[in-house]
Amino acid sequence: MHLRISSSIMFDILLLSSLSVTELQFPPGISSSDSEKEQNGTTTPRPEAGNSSLVFAVNGEKFEVATIDPSTTLLQFLRNHTRFKSVKLSCGEGGCGACVVMLSKYNPVLDQVEDFSVSSCLTLLCSVNGCSITTSDGLGNSKDGFHPIHQRFAGFHASQCGYCTPGMCMSFFAALTQAEKANRPEPPPGFSKLTVVEAEKAIAGNLCRCTGYRPIADACKSFAADVDLEDLGLNSFWRKGEPKEVKLRRLPLYSPDGRFSRFPEFLRLRLKSAKILHLESKSWYSPTTLEELKSFLDSNMIEDDMRTRLVVGNTGMGYYKELDNYDRYIDLKYVPELSTIRKNHQGIEIGAAMTISKVISCLKEEGNVNYSSDRKQVLEKLAGHMEKIASGFIRNSASIGGNLVMAQRKSFPSDIATILLAVGSVVSITTGHKLESLTLEEFLARPPMDSRSVLLSVHIPSLKPKGSGNSNESSSKLIFETYRAAPRPLGNALPYLNAAFLADVLPQVNGLIVNDIQLAFGVYGTKHATRARKVEEYLSGKILTASVLYEAVKLVKVAVIPEAGTSHAAYRTSLAVSFLFQFLFPFVNVGSAIFGGVSNGFTGNSLEDSSENHKNNSLRQWASPKLLSSAKQEVKSSKEYYPVGEPMTKSGAALQASGEAVYVDDIPSPPNCLYGAFIYSTKPLAKVKGVELESNNLQSGVAALISYKDIPEGGENVGSMTTLGFEPLFADELTRCAGEPIAFVVAETQKSADLAAKSALVEYDTENLDPPILTVEEAVERSSFFEVPSFLYPTQVGDFSKGMAEADHQILSAEVKLGSQYYFYMETQTALAVPDEDNCILVYSSTQSAEHMHHTIGKCLGIPDHNVRVVTRRVGGAFGGKLMRSMPVSIINMQIKFFLNVFIAYALSLSYFAAIQSGLVYVR
Amino acid sequence: MHLRISSSIMFDILLLSSLSVTELQFPPGISSSDSEKEQNGTTTPRPEAGNSSLVFAVNGEKFEVATIDPSTTLLQFLRNHTRFKSVKLSCGEGGCGACVVMLSKYNPVLDQVEDFSVSSCLTLLCSVNGCSITTSDGLGNSKDGFHPIHQRFAGFHASQCGYCTPGMCMSFFAALTQAEKANRPEPPPGFSKLTVVEAEKAIAGNLCRCTGYRPIADACKSFAADVDLEDLGLNSFWRKGEPKEVKLRRLPLYSPDGRFSRFPEFLRLRLKSAKILHLESKSWYSPTTLEELKSFLDSNMIEDDMRTRLVVGNTGMGYYKELDNYDRYIDLKYVPELSTIRKNHQGIEIGAAMTISKVISCLKEEGNVNYSSDRKQVLEKLAGHMEKIASGFIRNSASIGGNLVMAQRKSFPSDIATILLAVGSVVSITTGHKLESLTLEEFLARPPMDSRSVLLSVHIPSLKPKGSGNSNESSSKLIFETYRAAPRPLGNALPYLNAAFLADVLPQVNGLIVNDIQLAFGVYGTKHATRARKVEEYLSGKILTASVLYEAVKLVKVAVIPEAGTSHAAYRTSLAVSFLFQFLFPFVNVGSAIFGGVSNGFTGNSLEDSSENHKNNSLRQWASPKLLSSAKQEVKSSKEYYPVGEPMTKSGAALQASGEAVYVDDIPSPPNCLYGAFIYSTKPLAKVKGVELESNNLQSGVAALISYKDIPEGGENVGSMTTLGFEPLFADELTRCAGEPIAFVVAETQKSADLAAKSALVEYDTENLDPPILTVEEAVERSSFFEVPSFLYPTQVGDFSKGMAEADHQILSAEVKLGSQYYFYMETQTALAVPDEDNCILVYSSTQSAEHMHHTIGKCLGIPDHNVRVVTRRVGGAFGGKLMRSMPVSIINMQIKFFLNVFIAYALSLSYFAAIQSGLVYVR
Repeated sequence: MHLRISSSIMFDILLLSSLSVTELQFPPGISSSDSEKEQNGTTTPRPEAGNSSLVFAVNGEKFEVATIDPSTTLLQFLRNHTRFKSVKLSCGEGGCGACVVMLSKYNPVLDQVEDFSVSSCLTLLCSVNGCSITTSDGLGNSKDGFHPIHQRFAGFHASQCGYCTPGMCMSFFAALTQAEKANRPEPPPGFSKLTVVEAEKAIAGNLCRCTGYRPIADACKSFAADVDLEDLGLNSFWRKGEPKEVKLRRLPLYSPDGRFSRFPEFLRLRLKSAKILHLESKSWYSPTTLEELKSFLDSNMIEDDMRTRLVVGNTGMGYYKELDNYDRYIDLKYVPELSTIRKNHQGIEIGAAMTISKVISCLKEEGNVNYSSDRKQVLEKLAGHMEKIASGFIRNSASIGGNLVMAQRKSFPSDIATILLAVGSVVSITTGHKLESLTLEEFLARPPMDSRSVLLSVHIPSLKPKGSGNSNESSSKLIFETYRAAPRPLGNALPYLNAAFLADVLPQVNGLIVNDIQLAFGVYGTKHATRARKVEEYLSGKILTASVLYEAVKLVKVAVIPEAGTSHAAYRTSLAVSFLFQFLFPFVNVGSAIFGGVSNGFTGNSLEDSSENHKNNSLRQWASPKLLSSAKQEVKSSKEYYPVGEPMTKSGAALQASGEAVYVDDIPSPPNCLYGAFIYSTKPLAKVKGVELESNNLQSGVAALISYKDIPEGGENVGSMTTLGFEPLFADELTRCAGEPIAFVVAETQKSADLAAKSALVEYDTENLDPPILTVEEAVERSSFFEVPSFLYPTQVGDFSKGMAEADHQILSAEVKLGSQYYFYMETQTALAVPDEDNCILVYSSTQSAEHMHHTIGKCLGIPDHNVRVVTRRVGGAFGGKLMRSMPVSIINMQIKFFLNVFIAYALSLSYFAAIQSGLVYVR
Repeated sequence: MHLRISSSIMFDILLLSSLSVTELQFPPGISSSDSEKEQNGTTTPRPEAGNSSLVFAVNGEKFEVATIDPSTTLLQFLRNHTRFKSVKLSCGEGGCGACVVMLSKYNPVLDQVEDFSVSSCLTLLCSVNGCSITTSDGLGNSKDGFHPIHQRFAGFHASQCGYCTPGMCMSFFAALTQAEKANRPEPPPGFSKLTVVEAEKAIAGNLCRCTGYRPIADACKSFAADVDLEDLGLNSFWRKGEPKEVKLRRLPLYSPDGRFSRFPEFLRLRLKSAKILHLESKSWYSPTTLEELKSFLDSNMIEDDMRTRLVVGNTGMGYYKELDNYDRYIDLKYVPELSTIRKNHQGIEIGAAMTISKVISCLKEEGNVNYSSDRKQVLEKLAGHMEKIASGFIRNSASIGGNLVMAQRKSFPSDIATILLAVGSVVSITTGHKLESLTLEEFLARPPMDSRSVLLSVHIPSLKPKGSGNSNESSSKLIFETYRAAPRPLGNALPYLNAAFLADVLPQVNGLIVNDIQLAFGVYGTKHATRARKVEEYLSGKILTASVLYEAVKLVKVAVIPEAGTSHAAYRTSLAVSFLFQFLFPFVNVGSAIFGGVSNGFTGNSLEDSSENHKNNSLRQWASPKLLSSAKQEVKSSKEYYPVGEPMTKSGAALQASGEAVYVDDIPSPPNCLYGAFIYSTKPLAKVKGVELESNNLQSGVAALISYKDIPEGGENVGSMTTLGFEPLFADELTRCAGEPIAFVVAETQKSADLAAKSALVEYDTENLDPPILTVEEAVERSSFFEVPSFLYPTQVGDFSKGMAEADHQILSAEVKLGSQYYFYMETQTALAVPDEDNCILVYSSTQSAEHMHHTIGKCLGIPDHNVRVVTRRVGGAFGGKLMRSMPVSIINMQIKFFLNVFIAYALSLSYFAAIQSGLVYVR
């Protein structure tokens, strides 16, 4: 029997057996199609009249939005239209977690709320209709009292610059909430149901550049039921050696009773009569049937210019960073076929709109149900691999279908495509009225899907060894493994190569016969994941011996060849070789051992080991066994300068955790604020002949384009003036490096400015110019040196000649090369400038050197220094990167004032800016 | 022959004789009805399709407004939606001039622009369609350079608190512009065509509370062609005794060429194809024919609830201060019948929508045309009297019809009704399709006009003495005089009583025979102006003798009796007596003198004298002969503390003049600002049982109602704490005086807050309460004393007993009473509060005692003082009134934060407030 479940009730499938299928699938008010499998009748489901306003809650407050640009993200809304500025923008691509919030979705059938973390920078606002959002300043604050998470983050010194902290808190809070709601034994008083391992994993994917993570992990672990408080690091709560009871008493009390409902009653009530959101005027559609969806897609063919975006989690935007507006957004989550997982003996069919997190849960769940089967092994390994994709808050909203379609259409470096390819998955596609079923391999090999086509589902077949069903012990078995090599082994990084191998093997006395084998490789500089057919053919039917393995490896080496231009090409190929070797080597000549239950000295990847591990995993499913890191911390504090060195809570740390701490971008934009974006040079050395904005941008709120020619009379083209020297604000005649600012777009919204800057056309001319100097060697050769300020001259330490003469070993020749350094601060370069009376200017800047900025601004604008006031309250990370690099950002803001006679404002991201125009521009 | 002229070309009637009537009346694009007098045909004039957006210029910038609440004033728009904050709100009723701007209207027929001052606080934005507005910051500023007006205001020390200064500058600039455009001899270089008298009159009606006006008048006079620089007071430009050329050279150069067009080309071009503004959705209509107007008014009867406001200058709002919204606004200025003045031998017919300024000009003009006639005398005296109505910037937009209709409907204390009553004026009214002509006396005596009726015009008959036409020297003559007694003799104040007397007299050898006499009295505590019929009857036919005059005066005394409850009743009656005496006494027994040309020792109001004066006035019409004030200033500066005492320009004075100086209310409202208004007690001693807002206000943006019960935990109900004692913020159980704050309404707009506060219902209970103490005597009797702080105890000076013993004269008994004092500062009480992180608050306050406020706010809110920051940059006048009285205004703002968890903001007018809610309230 098939069981269809809506995405929102995935976790609770077993509870639902007494409810009919149609009752399950949709919230009341949305009629659903009858299950075609069970009734076979044609259905004409119609949603109730589309709802034209978006209703959701933020920290218990109701928000109702009638008109909204559907490309607006949750983050943009929260930061620009609410007071909840704890939600920070940093990478803007779902890679850092600074923007994480907890999303709570109500499941009206189960009358339960699901809570999970999402990155608000990618989540589209329209897709949170009916949801409740919790932010760190909603958990607690200086007025209502801080949440114990905030207090413990503060006491464990887990917040330094503080910019990542609210997102950390929310990732952790979502995990805490999930754990508390799970059916687990009651924890000891003062602790939660969460485990230390879960606590640590909860914040995986949230980046911090200051702390080194240890204090953050400690703060989180302090809530865990199974924590050993003695393991936690230096904190301001207790002294080393105090008894556990004392320590616990000194921790800010945690009690799982939330002080306010994360899902307010009004939303619950509203959902009882919920309507699907259709913002027709603004082009947000939510089809509730496949037919509706098809008719929308068909109209794509008619209206050629109509750019349609299919939306589930919108996380693809983090990778592709498209700034353009689409004409139409279609929310896929109300189409039952796309939001259903069906399981039967033939396999699992997963609706394309299912989130990766739900798929992982489903695979694990199914593995448990089919305990100890071969299938279980495969499903759990698939799930385990998927847990390394991006981070939890991305997997919670990214869909499996979106991942596969990006892989198919845009060669997205997908892990899912590779691992599902190895297990012989099949996809269903609809194009107009044509429904197709084809293998994932065929799907990937096709030309990119057109805009009428939509991936409906992917089917993971129930894998059985060929000899299964036969009770003979010597029948064949499946072995399956997946691999990925990435900069970060635990996930949250795209791999250099991934692979998944499935083999049907029959143990013989003389070794293992490979009945059948499927080898999938991906992301190594290939358009899409592929099967290594030649290797598979070579191995099929062979007994695994060292020489067979060696031959297979040689074949892989020529099968997995990155396309020209791929970085680390040789490394990637060698990874393919290593992974295949790693997969097969344990079984070379050891076939008999597998079934004897004896380890035979092999500690490798034997089948028995795998099964045992799986068994353990399954038994302790809620307590994944591995701690990501472990360390002991011994800090001795001298009393000589007491209290210096004592572990005291940093002033404002709790404010940073709750997100109340005001960073420059958190200062509310004054009315009629203008925003800006730099246009950077793409040529290291070229004449800039002209900069042009696309004409349609000129009509969409762009107020000005500023370059060095607009430096005011009496001012200078100076971008930074420090003891380290002088840098211009803009490239003048010649660009001096790639990435040098050429011009600055000022617009009414940040988005307009970004779009205009991105699409600006710069005309370069490199005629009669020397080639640029790109290496130190070239610079030496052409005698091009920067002057080094004398205070940076190296000072001699010791007597080099004497030391070398006395040394046992001498360096006869050596070369040391330093790579470039990449400043990476969580808070991006930002400034807000507000003109004041009498030609003065007040600049809020996230800078490390307010004093230099102060002088540089005056110089650039040709106004006395005393007309400039620079205010820096705090900096969200800097590491030297906000010493000089922050200045142009502030200075350009000043520029705007003098050119446009406007109030000036504020900026985001390395190149972002903002300006206030104090007069309303009613006329464009 | 009748000549119809549109209101906009009044001044230029003589130039137009070759143009046909219809061409004259309307700007192109607005077809007008044919003159019914000349063609007698039925007309079906239709305007072109209504224009749905409002276009105008501010300081040369184009503004186009498509959606606007038609009750929005020009001031609200300028201050809230542009950067031109030089336009200040003070009285909000057209009485102070702080909001004055120059309005420039284009006359397409003459291709000329008319420039005049208006008070922007009363002018509705919709009525400036097609106009250009100039503000003081548009004249010049710190970036583009100050205007010489700003510079001279600064140098003559004409700006102290600075709040009135931009309005002063604009009143003066409008006069300067008018003078420069007039057909006058070229002034000497560096001077304008303006005269000193005009310069002084230009700022009449603009109030200043700091300077005493002398420095302002000096700054203005320095531009006058006929100024004697030696007469000007202390300034920072020159030293006493320097030659005129040096002085002139030291003055900031004035040159009449404006640096930018006050009427931008785009507006001129647009007006060539102008359309009438119809904001149908927002209910602003501009009928262009009488028929259209009638049909709008007829629909009033059908739609009972429809509240319609007929608009010309909207100045009536200054008196009646209605806050309510009307459903529909009808702009009368495009109806030709209402905007036309017709003159013929029978008299002058003035369209009801003509402004008082235009009427004054017309009357003077007509007086000149009919030089030396009796008629001239009457017209010029009418004009002279009208020049005392309100102030120039009000007369420039207030209509004569509006004045009369308010007198008729609402018993408005009108001067125009009284003086026109005396000359036998006739009005035309239309009600539905009925056209009525009735005397002004009949009109005033009627019950109030209904909403379908509209006053079309008023006709001032050509007055002729009964014997006129007869060349006999002894034929009768007209004598006419008008009177008003008001707190300010030169205008800008409502009178206690006004009067106008017209007599037809025949000189005889034994005295003057009164052929006929009309005596009109008004505003003395009467519903409307009335004729003293009994006195008129008594005097008619009598020879004026002392006993006749005595009898007449006795009759007046019983005829002019204020209604019960009128203040100064006896004084008003005595004024009537005095005025009649003043009018008639010169002619008692002196009839023969009048015609002999000999003064006969009488220096009074003889007919001959009047004529001579009129003659002089007419000859020097552009140079009214009287200086309002004149003084010599001798200031000796000691060198002992040099440079203390030197006349140095105040830092920031030019910024104040240009209006760039930022007062608290000029700080832009942060996004989501909330605004507030106090609800004051109307009972001096009563229990407050409850406060309720009208239910419709609750739905219109009101966010909260706050009273003493909402004082936060740990805080105290304290409104001010100084060395002078303690005052509560709110009345608690009992009100302590009338005017004590009871509650505070917080709303999304200032208007919502004001409306809600105004219409709030407070339930009082005075049962079992002693009567309130209202006098010092009662306080003494009931031993109710305020504690006087010891530092205010009187100190004894000298030896009283000894002094009295030695004195030549002794005070045996004396009583001194001090009246109440009225604090009057131009900038009203204002505060802007912005919450900051960590439960802190930043308060911008216009206060004289930031230190006390700082402490009081902390105390009231129960937060540490260090969480409070009070910023006061400048104060727009205070005089002690912002010592304690400013505190509640700031403190209440703090309250809002703690109750609503909002950002807080800012306030206007004694009781006004504002608050920012940092979270957008999408749900109302």
